[in-house]
Amino acid sequence: MPAPDFSEHFSVQNIPFGIASSASHNQVQVVTRIGNAVVFVFDLAASGLFSEIDGLDSSVFKRSSLNEFASYPKWMRVAVRETIQKSFEAKGLSGFPPGSTEDISAITLHLPIQPGDFIDYSCSLEHVRNAGRIVAKSDRLPPGFFNFPIGYHGRASSIYVSGTDIERPRGHYYSGNGTGKYLVYGPSQALDYEVELAMIVGSPIEAGVGVTAVDADKHIFGFVIMNDWSARDIQSVEMPPLGPFNGKSFGTSISPWVITQEALEPFMVKSKNKTLPTAEYIADPDNCSYSIQMQVELLTDGVAPTIIGTSNVSSLYWNVRQMVAHAVSSGSPLRTGDILATGTVSEPGRGERGCLLETTEGGLEPVILTDGTCRKYLEDLDIVRMTAIAGEPSSGVGFGACLGRVLPSR
Amino acid sequence: MPAPDFSEHFSVQNIPFGIASSASHNQVQVVTRIGNAVVFVFDLAASGLFSEIDGLDSSVFKRSSLNEFASYPKWMRVAVRETIQKSFEAKGLSGFPPGSTEDISAITLHLPIQPGDFIDYSCSLEHVRNAGRIVAKSDRLPPGFFNFPIGYHGRASSIYVSGTDIERPRGHYYSGNGTGKYLVYGPSQALDYEVELAMIVGSPIEAGVGVTAVDADKHIFGFVIMNDWSARDIQSVEMPPLGPFNGKSFGTSISPWVITQEALEPFMVKSKNKTLPTAEYIADPDNCSYSIQMQVELLTDGVAPTIIGTSNVSSLYWNVRQMVAHAVSSGSPLRTGDILATGTVSEPGRGERGCLLETTEGGLEPVILTDGTCRKYLEDLDIVRMTAIAGEPSSGVGFGACLGRVLPSR
Repeated sequence: MPAPDFSEHFSVQNIPFGIASSASHNQVQVVTRIGNAVVFVFDLAASGLFSEIDGLDSSVFKRSSLNEFASYPKWMRVAVRETIQKSFEAKGLSGFPPGSTEDISAITLHLPIQPGDFIDYSCSLEHVRNAGRIVAKSDRLPPGFFNFPIGYHGRASSIYVSGTDIERPRGHYYSGNGTGKYLVYGPSQALDYEVELAMIVGSPIEAGVGVTAVDADKHIFGFVIMNDWSARDIQSVEMPPLGPFNGKSFGTSISPWVITQEALEPFMVKSKNKTLPTAEYIADPDNCSYSIQMQVELLTDGVAPTIIGTSNVSSLYWNVRQMVAHAVSSGSPLRTGDILATGTVSEPGRGERGCLLETTEGGLEPVILTDGTCRKYLEDLDIVRMTAIAGEPSSGVGFGACLGRVLPSR
Repeated sequence: MPAPDFSEHFSVQNIPFGIASSASHNQVQVVTRIGNAVVFVFDLAASGLFSEIDGLDSSVFKRSSLNEFASYPKWMRVAVRETIQKSFEAKGLSGFPPGSTEDISAITLHLPIQPGDFIDYSCSLEHVRNAGRIVAKSDRLPPGFFNFPIGYHGRASSIYVSGTDIERPRGHYYSGNGTGKYLVYGPSQALDYEVELAMIVGSPIEAGVGVTAVDADKHIFGFVIMNDWSARDIQSVEMPPLGPFNGKSFGTSISPWVITQEALEPFMVKSKNKTLPTAEYIADPDNCSYSIQMQVELLTDGVAPTIIGTSNVSSLYWNVRQMVAHAVSSGSPLRTGDILATGTVSEPGRGERGCLLETTEGGLEPVILTDGTCRKYLEDLDIVRMTAIAGEPSSGVGFGACLGRVLPSR
């Protein structure tokens, strides 16, 4: 797997959280990152750095997921992050205890969150328009599109951390065309990625209580990049009428660093979209979004990366607050660690589409890679690299990468 | 809530597992049931009853869910069950340690399992035909229906134990008719139940490994009745194209006693359905099902129950083994405690339909209750009681009841 240097994504303005281990820190635990230095947060706690944060139990930093830390009150998480920032700004890395930092190259990053439920929405009007035109040959939108974000539940157990190989799934799909088409079972012939932003729930929302969109930010822990791998041929057979299942559940990749809501707050913008009136629970008069530029590259062994698509989260019709409000609006709870994703982030331009289905018009117009080969859909050993940065490229607040390589079917 | 006596469901041939507490056992823990006696399994373990079962850690019976016990190897779970049976057959309840049993009336039953993922299938050909005719005015089946069980993921966090009230959900639905119809937001006007059998995963299946249907039984811990409450009006707006979401996720009820796969094995039958050839992973030459008769009653305060539908699990087109095999066929894992449900169990007869949508033909032909009132869909304070028994009514192996009452929207 290629490992480019994303140190510029992790300025002191970022201070993300992740789960890592190393030779000298062989117990999987909580880390943060500044530049290319990975900082073991328990070591900071043990040195007394957080002694002024009332009620903070430092064992939370020795857990194998961020769930317990994410469940802490927002003020406490903010205090931890700001204390780390202040220490670094005063004394640099040398202000941290000896042995508490290691270079990123020495680190193994693990799945940061143990997700309970996984909800995937379809918030991009462009994606829905493109998919409708290409798959259903229709310009009709889902009937509820302008009333609420359309969503479904995905498989939580097959969410993997960036770097995990993804095996080409088997399933049922059509062979042949028109009236001569028939169903076969085998490895997908139309494996795709989808670039998404995914939100991780911090403080939970109890059943039956609900939350309005304008009050939802306080339940957000942070964000990761998501690659919602999708087998288009399997999907097309299984989706009517209950939606995606095995065509998506074979694997979903997320980036290892949870970028906190606080780190992204300076990059809040008014959404580019003009939205229609909504029910009260989901209204957001500020039409608040984040300026997060996402980019998808396709790589193969020994071949320079090809940029396939770039798109900005601020283009989404529905925002993250509204995703939260809708998820609890019929009475269900949200738990700490639940993951809510935006769906494919696509913008109107041809180079601004968030999946191959859209970019290649369903395989009709292949993309050409830097080595001159073509792709309709993903081939075995292709690597998809997604990156994201908030605001301008020099902002210092980025997500690093979400990587995955396609392995052949067994 | 009415609490009829289901003691005849719990003969010594059953020995289900549940999670309970009481005044004298105030720590939530593992129980079984014989007749109306609830037996605290840790007390049996502490008395040495299981001393011959190598490697059994009795603390597993002090857990607040059955997940850890369900993860044990099948031989160990079987040994626990058979040891309890042998003791009871030799000495009756008096053979158990003093204080280890209490009458069911003194007990609070809790959610037996902490589910990871929740998968709901649509295994009944009759249900799919009825729903297609009533909702879509179409006799077309989903394209994959005869190739694999169509399924989707539900919300795991809103699975509740029987007896939990269900609040009428709010959502978007159509008001008016034909070209004059428009979307409104408010309490559902078409709240329904769905009677289902739900399976709980025992030993897990790792990612990428898969399992064939004929090998799947060994991953099954046991079964519960499920009421997959459904708001038909909300569903009809939100389902295209991603499937059910808030119209189902507001709440799903399960019965408190997990009936083990071993207890149901004597009631295995060849499915009534003639099935078409399938891919190898999902083929089950024995076409193996369970004879489990399910019944739905509707009750209101002070009014005698009305039986609305009875149907048998053996009528389903796809069986439980096939549900397991399909769930992992594209590469995803199944974890201990994951719940896989059959979808609505409906048979061809008019009194054999598993939900009101079907029974009332979409509200056109209301059912008449014992007090002479009509129901198109559920009204506030209606109670839905589902029961199930294996084989003949006198078999001694039943599920008890899955109960839920509809509360008005806040």
